[in-house]
Amino acid sequence: MAAYSELSKEELLNLKSGLEKKFKQIQKQNLHLDMSRGKPSAAQLDLSMGMMDILNSTSNLKCEAGVDCRNYGVLDGIPEAQELLADMTEVPANQIIIYGNSSLNVMFDTVARSMTHGVMGSTPWCKLDKVKWLCPVPGYDRHFAITEYFGIEMINVPMTPDGPDMDMVEKLVSEDEAIKGIWCVPKYSNPQGITYSDETVRRFARLKPAAKDFRIYWDNAYGIHHLYDDKQDYLIEILMECKKEGNPDMVYKFCSTSKVSFPGSGVAAIAASPANLEFIRQHMRIQTIGHDKLNQLRHVRFFKDIHGMVMHMRKHAEILRPKFEAVLNVLDQELTGLEIGSWIRPRGGYFISFDALPGCAKAIVEKAKDAGLVMTPAGATYPYGKDPQDSNIRIAPSFPTPEELAIAAEIFVLSVKLVSIDKILESK
Amino acid sequence: MAAYSELSKEELLNLKSGLEKKFKQIQKQNLHLDMSRGKPSAAQLDLSMGMMDILNSTSNLKCEAGVDCRNYGVLDGIPEAQELLADMTEVPANQIIIYGNSSLNVMFDTVARSMTHGVMGSTPWCKLDKVKWLCPVPGYDRHFAITEYFGIEMINVPMTPDGPDMDMVEKLVSEDEAIKGIWCVPKYSNPQGITYSDETVRRFARLKPAAKDFRIYWDNAYGIHHLYDDKQDYLIEILMECKKEGNPDMVYKFCSTSKVSFPGSGVAAIAASPANLEFIRQHMRIQTIGHDKLNQLRHVRFFKDIHGMVMHMRKHAEILRPKFEAVLNVLDQELTGLEIGSWIRPRGGYFISFDALPGCAKAIVEKAKDAGLVMTPAGATYPYGKDPQDSNIRIAPSFPTPEELAIAAEIFVLSVKLVSIDKILESK
Repeated sequence: MAAYSELSKEELLNLKSGLEKKFKQIQKQNLHLDMSRGKPSAAQLDLSMGMMDILNSTSNLKCEAGVDCRNYGVLDGIPEAQELLADMTEVPANQIIIYGNSSLNVMFDTVARSMTHGVMGSTPWCKLDKVKWLCPVPGYDRHFAITEYFGIEMINVPMTPDGPDMDMVEKLVSEDEAIKGIWCVPKYSNPQGITYSDETVRRFARLKPAAKDFRIYWDNAYGIHHLYDDKQDYLIEILMECKKEGNPDMVYKFCSTSKVSFPGSGVAAIAASPANLEFIRQHMRIQTIGHDKLNQLRHVRFFKDIHGMVMHMRKHAEILRPKFEAVLNVLDQELTGLEIGSWIRPRGGYFISFDALPGCAKAIVEKAKDAGLVMTPAGATYPYGKDPQDSNIRIAPSFPTPEELAIAAEIFVLSVKLVSIDKILESK
Repeated sequence: MAAYSELSKEELLNLKSGLEKKFKQIQKQNLHLDMSRGKPSAAQLDLSMGMMDILNSTSNLKCEAGVDCRNYGVLDGIPEAQELLADMTEVPANQIIIYGNSSLNVMFDTVARSMTHGVMGSTPWCKLDKVKWLCPVPGYDRHFAITEYFGIEMINVPMTPDGPDMDMVEKLVSEDEAIKGIWCVPKYSNPQGITYSDETVRRFARLKPAAKDFRIYWDNAYGIHHLYDDKQDYLIEILMECKKEGNPDMVYKFCSTSKVSFPGSGVAAIAASPANLEFIRQHMRIQTIGHDKLNQLRHVRFFKDIHGMVMHMRKHAEILRPKFEAVLNVLDQELTGLEIGSWIRPRGGYFISFDALPGCAKAIVEKAKDAGLVMTPAGATYPYGKDPQDSNIRIAPSFPTPEELAIAAEIFVLSVKLVSIDKILESK
């Protein structure tokens, strides 16, 4: 197909008229489709139903350390859960603390603690005039929501195919003591599915931040969430890399089983240097009586070990892969060569990122809604919900059925085409 | 028996020599006993083992509202869990939010949020020069640890048989805008087992605080934790009382099933006015993806309703009552009339509070340890761990077996006697 921008006004109007007919036919079907959230489908949740049987009233409910998991105690998590989640995120088992069901909550608490108590002896951030944060964009809206909630000024850092623009990161971090953190989803990033290159990870590990309480918030949400057996991204382990570079305390690593077992009832964790963990424990000892050890035990008994978890993730991939491909195939077939948008074919994670012509994202999402398709709000992938280009749209193909996705993708490309034609016509 | 203080020096020395022989005999047994923590025993945990079977892979895992409890969503908790915990703490179901496994964590988060974001529009406490807190004493060490952690100045308020000294509370709260809260365990208080009188609750509801962001932290930890069927304390419901008095927003009520189901895997909640809850939700939406709904469902399916929970609590009482009585009987038999200590016979809760002669508590706990009995550290029931009288000792009889408790109580009274004799001899 020819690029839309090269078509004449008449050709575009003709095209538009045909597309509008199609759009109206779809509208008549009164559909309710949703590609807005990175939510596993029921079929994926069914994969973990064995977890509902793995503990029962005849089970030994003591962990390997001999502690009754029903009772109080064990702040760091039971040792076998530490091992499982440490293996999952590729760190030593003594460098991880197990939390409750939400890694977002762990990240929130980490920022909240820094606000009131600083970081390993630094001034509490609430006592500073200004706290700033680097936000690779497009990125995860719930990360940005945390820093916004605490009044932290967010600075956009563009993503490249290798990860965040490291020239910019290095410059800003080394010059500005007010910059205290950066949000990273380093593997199969949200929303682009980009995995940080070896060079990017190494440059992170070699950062020379002006602020000694600067931390990399390494949200390894999709560390084992591959879509393929044969094509998998590899991410260098950041804790070890930082240690090698003499920056052992510069990173917090977050992970959870939310998209491994059950999104509402998983197990989350933080991995960090011993010094960071000891500081965190001082806080945890005051904050909680400890996290749910029975749920930790449930996870360990079900998955057994990291190999069991990896095999389990293949089953997720089998369900997710056709969904991603259904959407990507429609994008390929319908939009290739039109020069009205670009997208990345991810090898894992939960999202496809689509970049429309500048100024079109909001209108496309609006348009799709008119045909019964709910997308993530345009702008959500940027701090303060403001995409300066109004270009990026996050596509979440996990929850609908493949049949629904085929129609949803059809609505999406129709919306992209119609909105893009209008945009191009403006300048003709 | 005659009061020790009325005995002559010789009589006391004779007495001491006999008691020391007994003490040494016990020491030879090389015992390891623990009355330090309010930890349910294995027999109590066994009462809830049915909860391990109540959900399995064939269960319907949707809540009444039709939501799949395995997946994301439902920030307030599933409706049936709201109803159960609302009934438990005697508030309407729309005035409660369900949290994770630890009510301590809910209280911590409540203070943390006030530090960084104030209370319903007030200045964040971290921006104030001084924040103060009222602490009825003796009280719960983990409460005091939270306020200490946030650098809040704690002011001791003496407990009376009717609850905190309300003359003092009213005066301080109405005069000092820096006072932002008060820790209360209003029913079967920790450690004394005192239930606030009707008049005390009403005076709380009628407080006229100088600070509009003053809140009563009403930790109803033992609301249904009676020891007897026939002798039960009654506590006026504070939310309704505050509403009646035109102070609907003045109280946060906390509760959990930690000592109903499993201490490590229960369900916690906060109850408050709609305005307070809406402010809390603004925070929660950023903080978490929601709490563990499967565990909420597990609780509801197991207990069914508040009647089921009340019947369940009777089974706890049957296990706990003999333990309390074992300790109380030894105290009665061995210490009555000696005027070397006083104690309260609680009708519920988890503790017995013992007041030794001033200056003796630390030494008694030390002495008991010499015979293999671990007690809660003396001073723990006061802010900063400092009991100005060095008098109060918390006895936690829940975890040991009745047989162990009989010996533990024996060691305790021996320690009380020996230390008291030394104290009295000092002034002879």
